[in-house]
Amino acid sequence: MDGRILVINGPNLNLLGMREKDIYGEKSLEDINRELRVMAMEKQVEMNFFQSNHEGEIIDRIQDARGQADCIIINAGAFTHYSIAIHDALKAVDIPVIEVHLSNIFKREAFRQQSLISPIAVGGIFGFGALSYKMAFLAACEIIRDQTD
Amino acid sequence: MDGRILVINGPNLNLLGMREKDIYGEKSLEDINRELRVMAMEKQVEMNFFQSNHEGEIIDRIQDARGQADCIIINAGAFTHYSIAIHDALKAVDIPVIEVHLSNIFKREAFRQQSLISPIAVGGIFGFGALSYKMAFLAACEIIRDQTD
Amino acid sequence: MDGRILVINGPNLNLLGMREKDIYGEKSLEDINRELRVMAMEKQVEMNFFQSNHEGEIIDRIQDARGQADCIIINAGAFTHYSIAIHDALKAVDIPVIEVHLSNIFKREAFRQQSLISPIAVGGIFGFGALSYKMAFLAACEIIRDQTD
Amino acid sequence: MDGRILVINGPNLNLLGMREKDIYGEKSLEDINRELRVMAMEKQVEMNFFQSNHEGEIIDRIQDARGQADCIIINAGAFTHYSIAIHDALKAVDIPVIEVHLSNIFKREAFRQQSLISPIAVGGIFGFGALSYKMAFLAACEIIRDQTD
Amino acid sequence: MDGRILVINGPNLNLLGMREKDIYGEKSLEDINRELRVMAMEKQVEMNFFQSNHEGEIIDRIQDARGQADCIIINAGAFTHYSIAIHDALKAVDIPVIEVHLSNIFKREAFRQQSLISPIAVGGIFGFGALSYKMAFLAACEIIRDQTD
Amino acid sequence: MDGRILVINGPNLNLLGMREKDIYGEKSLEDINRELRVMAMEKQVEMNFFQSNHEGEIIDRIQDARGQADCIIINAGAFTHYSIAIHDALKAVDIPVIEVHLSNIFKREAFRQQSLISPIAVGGIFGFGALSYKMAFLAACEIIRDQTD
Amino acid sequence: MDGRILVINGPNLNLLGMREKDIYGEKSLEDINRELRVMAMEKQVEMNFFQSNHEGEIIDRIQDARGQADCIIINAGAFTHYSIAIHDALKAVDIPVIEVHLSNIFKREAFRQQSLISPIAVGGIFGFGALSYKMAFLAACEIIRDQTD
Amino acid sequence: MDGRILVINGPNLNLLGMREKDIYGEKSLEDINRELRVMAMEKQVEMNFFQSNHEGEIIDRIQDARGQADCIIINAGAFTHYSIAIHDALKAVDIPVIEVHLSNIFKREAFRQQSLISPIAVGGIFGFGALSYKMAFLAACEIIRDQTD
Amino acid sequence: MDGRILVINGPNLNLLGMREKDIYGEKSLEDINRELRVMAMEKQVEMNFFQSNHEGEIIDRIQDARGQADCIIINAGAFTHYSIAIHDALKAVDIPVIEVHLSNIFKREAFRQQSLISPIAVGGIFGFGALSYKMAFLAACEIIRDQTD
Amino acid sequence: MDGRILVINGPNLNLLGMREKDIYGEKSLEDINRELRVMAMEKQVEMNFFQSNHEGEIIDRIQDARGQADCIIINAGAFTHYSIAIHDALKAVDIPVIEVHLSNIFKREAFRQQSLISPIAVGGIFGFGALSYKMAFLAACEIIRDQTD
Amino acid sequence: MDGRILVINGPNLNLLGMREKDIYGEKSLEDINRELRVMAMEKQVEMNFFQSNHEGEIIDRIQDARGQADCIIINAGAFTHYSIAIHDALKAVDIPVIEVHLSNIFKREAFRQQSLISPIAVGGIFGFGALSYKMAFLAACEIIRDQTD
Amino acid sequence: MDGRILVINGPNLNLLGMREKDIYGEKSLEDINRELRVMAMEKQVEMNFFQSNHEGEIIDRIQDARGQADCIIINAGAFTHYSIAIHDALKAVDIPVIEVHLSNIFKREAFRQQSLISPIAVGGIFGFGALSYKMAFLAACEIIRDQTD
Repeated sequence: MDGRILVINGPNLNLLGMREKDIYGEKSLEDINRELRVMAMEKQVEMNFFQSNHEGEIIDRIQDARGQADCIIINAGAFTHYSIAIHDALKAVDIPVIEVHLSNIFKREAFRQQSLISPIAVGGIFGFGALSYKMAFLAACEIIRDQTD
Repeated sequence: MDGRILVINGPNLNLLGMREKDIYGEKSLEDINRELRVMAMEKQVEMNFFQSNHEGEIIDRIQDARGQADCIIINAGAFTHYSIAIHDALKAVDIPVIEVHLSNIFKREAFRQQSLISPIAVGGIFGFGALSYKMAFLAACEIIRDQTD
Repeated sequence: MDGRILVINGPNLNLLGMREKDIYGEKSLEDINRELRVMAMEKQVEMNFFQSNHEGEIIDRIQDARGQADCIIINAGAFTHYSIAIHDALKAVDIPVIEVHLSNIFKREAFRQQSLISPIAVGGIFGFGALSYKMAFLAACEIIRDQTD
Repeated sequence: MDGRILVINGPNLNLLGMREKDIYGEKSLEDINRELRVMAMEKQVEMNFFQSNHEGEIIDRIQDARGQADCIIINAGAFTHYSIAIHDALKAVDIPVIEVHLSNIFKREAFRQQSLISPIAVGGIFGFGALSYKMAFLAACEIIRDQTD
Repeated sequence: MDGRILVINGPNLNLLGMREKDIYGEKSLEDINRELRVMAMEKQVEMNFFQSNHEGEIIDRIQDARGQADCIIINAGAFTHYSIAIHDALKAVDIPVIEVHLSNIFKREAFRQQSLISPIAVGGIFGFGALSYKMAFLAACEIIRDQTD
Repeated sequence: MDGRILVINGPNLNLLGMREKDIYGEKSLEDINRELRVMAMEKQVEMNFFQSNHEGEIIDRIQDARGQADCIIINAGAFTHYSIAIHDALKAVDIPVIEVHLSNIFKREAFRQQSLISPIAVGGIFGFGALSYKMAFLAACEIIRDQTD
Repeated sequence: MDGRILVINGPNLNLLGMREKDIYGEKSLEDINRELRVMAMEKQVEMNFFQSNHEGEIIDRIQDARGQADCIIINAGAFTHYSIAIHDALKAVDIPVIEVHLSNIFKREAFRQQSLISPIAVGGIFGFGALSYKMAFLAACEIIRDQTD
Repeated sequence: MDGRILVINGPNLNLLGMREKDIYGEKSLEDINRELRVMAMEKQVEMNFFQSNHEGEIIDRIQDARGQADCIIINAGAFTHYSIAIHDALKAVDIPVIEVHLSNIFKREAFRQQSLISPIAVGGIFGFGALSYKMAFLAACEIIRDQTD
Repeated sequence: MDGRILVINGPNLNLLGMREKDIYGEKSLEDINRELRVMAMEKQVEMNFFQSNHEGEIIDRIQDARGQADCIIINAGAFTHYSIAIHDALKAVDIPVIEVHLSNIFKREAFRQQSLISPIAVGGIFGFGALSYKMAFLAACEIIRDQTD
Repeated sequence: MDGRILVINGPNLNLLGMREKDIYGEKSLEDINRELRVMAMEKQVEMNFFQSNHEGEIIDRIQDARGQADCIIINAGAFTHYSIAIHDALKAVDIPVIEVHLSNIFKREAFRQQSLISPIAVGGIFGFGALSYKMAFLAACEIIRDQTD
Repeated sequence: MDGRILVINGPNLNLLGMREKDIYGEKSLEDINRELRVMAMEKQVEMNFFQSNHEGEIIDRIQDARGQADCIIINAGAFTHYSIAIHDALKAVDIPVIEVHLSNIFKREAFRQQSLISPIAVGGIFGFGALSYKMAFLAACEIIRDQTD
Repeated sequence: MDGRILVINGPNLNLLGMREKDIYGEKSLEDINRELRVMAMEKQVEMNFFQSNHEGEIIDRIQDARGQADCIIINAGAFTHYSIAIHDALKAVDIPVIEVHLSNIFKREAFRQQSLISPIAVGGIFGFGALSYKMAFLAACEIIRDQTD
């Protein structure tokens, strides 16, 4: 299979495995990415990773993805809940989006229970820790396969 | 692997493939279940299916699952948004719960954007159509494996 | 004229004429149905009646109406205000719906002033007691005539 | 039968049949009134019609109806949603009121979903286009018959 | 004492003494005005009266009062609660305003408990029936006396 | 003393003593009922018990109580918070109602802090575990004594 | 004329004439009371005055007024906005109540725009400074005269 | 049995039997206390009574109860709904609290439907008039028995 | 260029230059219109002006504009915030609408921050005083040019 | 340095060191005051302390401070959140106010997150336990120094 | 004329002409800027342009404008709705601000209908596409002329 | 004493002493930092300062502080009110946080009255201008001393 998937991680996700392990689990972001790379190799999908604590850099990266990615997997972290600018960028580039959360955001603070990513996403996965990303990867493959059919 | 998964579908999901196909897709519930059965056989997991338009029957079924299932995958349909009784039943039986939605409920009416299942679920998947169930199945297997470790 | 009308009455409407007569009037549900049957005979319309206190049974009955009814007249009683599942069922079967209320729900408790039936109905009638049903019957005939034109 | 019905139409209803036909239908207000006049003649009911874009004129007309009308059928148009003054006038003259709407206001903008007429009306009809008025006429006749009994 | 007082009454107040006497009392608006005229003669104050059911006419009358009145006593009736335009007119002409209500609006419907007149009035009186106007008259005299000091 | 008391328990209360014991206590529903039966025998009151996870069955049971019970003790469980239909049924049958809760619902989730039973109940008891039912029984006896005086 | 009027002033009103004179005016509470005493002597009405910064003392004083006063004039100061206990006391003693405010509370902070006194008062006066009390005195006389007629 | 119960009654409850008898019943507070004293004597429980219209005195009394009472029965009257200070005092002394209301507060004004006592109470009883206190007494005995076990 | 522009001004705008000059500026409405007429002459556009304090007259004028105007520039004044009837009239006539405000309504009272004109306008200009109208004129010309292209 | 500081503590703060030590710390109010006295002596500032559970006494004390204190440090305890009367008293005496809280009120119940003291305070300190008072003392000294400059 | 105008465009506006053309039009940001440069040259105004997807860079740019620009034209894009930091920067530099939007934000999602720029702007223009900028330019010239008068 | 304190200042605080001096005072950020450095030297505490207008840079800086700082003093400026990402970063690094504000944010716009920093801070200080930082410094020292005990 042919296809390019861009995985974007938002603020503080670079600390995965180092902070609040009871919520976010033991694995580092690099651990998760490594596992995804293995899966990607098997499926022969090209895979790119990006993490930033800067909203503007995430917007730039999304814009650059136009014509360069067939699917975006995004865990926008805290930006999920207030960045209309990332919402707009994702809408503007017109690439299928899959929303991912490590934790079950609906068990947490009220301000984490609204997502500005959901309304422009194909769908989403929350609460399964690192597994959430793998599930997103499978969904991304399926979406790409549908596109190329 | 050993394990028993119960898949519960709520009201109107028996009409899948027959109604509003632009929202819910072409596949019937039976189609989806058949695919899940195939996956279950491969993984050697026992799988049970239940669909009802009656809130009370769903509660009964959840209660009966105590000691009979290791994971519940539930698409409570419209009950997702107002059945505190199903919420209570799921909480009472103390079996890991995975929430599933075919459509992206966050793109729809305001009254569909609150879920009473999420706060008692491990995690959830929404918006990937029939694929949502398969992803839930994989997550269920992972959860069961973790339990039996 | 040809046509099949299904009249659905929700919870507690079986007590009509027996309870709170100052709000709901003296006539029993059977009285109302008898009058509708007479009107139906004159217009040569087939008419079916269903009452239940069980949300699930009402959903089942609505689903069974697919291809069996040309118009649904529904007084969902208390379910009007919270049953998203009945809302979904009516939307799924894609039959014209007419909403009926005996009392003027806008003179009553705040929780009775939101209807989940209205957004999927062609139109509605409230406040005219038993007459509300007759008016709904006339509207149903008109709708059926328009369909068959 | 004896009786006098006053039909009041509020702002912009004089444009019926000329504007937004997908919402309000093809018939002009004059068409509707003509049909009502025919029905009135059959029933030997006196019928008066009034339309205005001016809130004050509608209030004046309602006040003049004291002792001159046995029932008021009113489609207050946009005034339905904010004119407490028309609400007060209708309440003051103490004549039975029937509320009418051509469109299903519950499918439209949020600001159209509150009615200040409903709380002082006997009942109401919405969503059946021109037929709404005919149904209101029938209800008015019934109300007048009950009064004169 | 020298001074000119303008008394403005809003919609449906022309029906005083004829409608809902338990709320508004037995006296007609003419009765009230006659009593005020007597008081005015004693105090040698010029007094003008205006009533209208038309928001626009009330605004015109307020505008005409510039330079012609030293104090406005206003019972804006239902307009009290939604007419920003009357609020603006009163603010624009810059004449002291006294708000009057026959009934205790704080015992009535929720929509009657917000006043757009209060924020631009010197003060107000509510709930004393016809006496409310006399009290307002006394306050108006005091205000005029203060101005002319 | 003469009198018939109907005790109704709603969804998931059949699991009492088996689930979330820190909230609901150690006793099973059968334990509680047995204790009530003993008390009833002493007071020579007839006592009937009903539990269901089905809203419709509870409504049916309430309707059947007309003329068959002098007082209803109800713990509607989760239905307390959203079943307008049970509210309506209790209101329709016109039998004194006593509301019971095992736990202190005001210490729990926001959605559990509104009761649709309270407005139609004589009174209520919450938070005393199994004792709540005994207290309700005493109140029921008092109410029946007052009726028969 | 015969009659006993009790004037109650709430917290911080003992500072009148000493604080925020732009809002509350130059007169001290004693100045106001002296003027009222003069008016009372002319009308031959007995008059009692009470001021306290203590909610409990105000409640005690209201309770003591049973059978001892024919009318209560109250400026509850800040307690106006949150003391349900004073609301209850006034309701319990069943003496006509007149609400007074020196300033126009509707021009001030949001938390000053709800009154718990209004719903149990005959009527009220706000915004006329010391004059507000005199107007209240006149209204009180009128109310007493009506009672004794 | 050994144990000390403190019964606290809030503002205006000293008027019981004298005011609004349709809501609060015929019995005076002294009548109720006398009945409780009889019950206490039978159970050999020490019982103390306190009533005040002063929030501060109630707080002082609660603080004094530390080490002097095993259970507090409180009807805080109007303070129930806004006294965070009483809430804090009850929480600080760490004695089991039982909340009592004579009337069914859920049938009354909106501002009476929130209780600041409930969240720190073991449980509560509302709506049974004087009987509410007796029920609370029984619950208190049970709580003390559990403590001393 | 060919084209007909209708400029509508709502209530109290006839007082421009005479009231609250710090908010609305020194120019009278006639001054503004004169300047617009000059601009119109240059561009050879026909221009009509209408001002009224009467909501009904504004609605009438808008209706008359059908087929007589190619663009409407409207400053509905206070009606902006509550006249659903003007909203409906503008929508009904289907002529491009430009919304104008002299002041920056977003710096003013909360009730001025919602506009019922905006949702049916092409666009709007606020805060530039008399210049707002000139800018609207330029936009109107552009819109007309686009239409005639 | 010259200056007089008044320290006011509200309800239940007399229990400091005796209740909920995890929230409020181990020190008694007397401990805190002793430490402040030492600091005051060093800075040669006069210091007065007042604690009460009675809102009225706190108001009286604040009023007495006029001309007797150069700065008020207040921890109004629960009154912080609802006593408009204390807010008014502080505003009336026109002495600089410093707000203090032992705990971080923003981590606690929703009803503790609004302060009526903040809007009339110079500034505030929360969350540092007994240290909060010392910090307030330093700020008070600074404020007094600025005044006397 | 002399004067320096700074034009700031926020996130995703660099994609103009490339994305969602039905909402934002065909022109690129460079096209718009070119047209503005031509206008500026005619008016002999200095003009600077800045676009960034980074909130921080926009703040830096605004701060740098102090003393370097006489007017800021800003289309803050998505930041309009949540960046209090940009609001603060614009307020801090004290340069006249003109708000611009290509689309009519009042026809779009709820979260786009609040602007944090409006309260600190002189005025604004929305809905006229590229023309909005030109209108803003004219307003800017007028503002600069007024300053230099 | 040993210890490392990191002082973080958010957007626009680099303009201190240059903008809105009536709100923020005359001192520049450098002035404040200099004073803090002096205090730090006395206490022999290591002190680092960071200011940025970029949310992302602040997050990066907070993350870098892990293991490098014993206490963070933060004035997040406008980010206080909406940056969930900074909230998350502070929570992730698990270093004690002290919140500082120069102005009394509770006297300002509604959108400035919610802090996302408070819920994760030890405590906070607001309203004392530059002094706020010094007080925070003292609190920080106390916190560090407690840690090292």
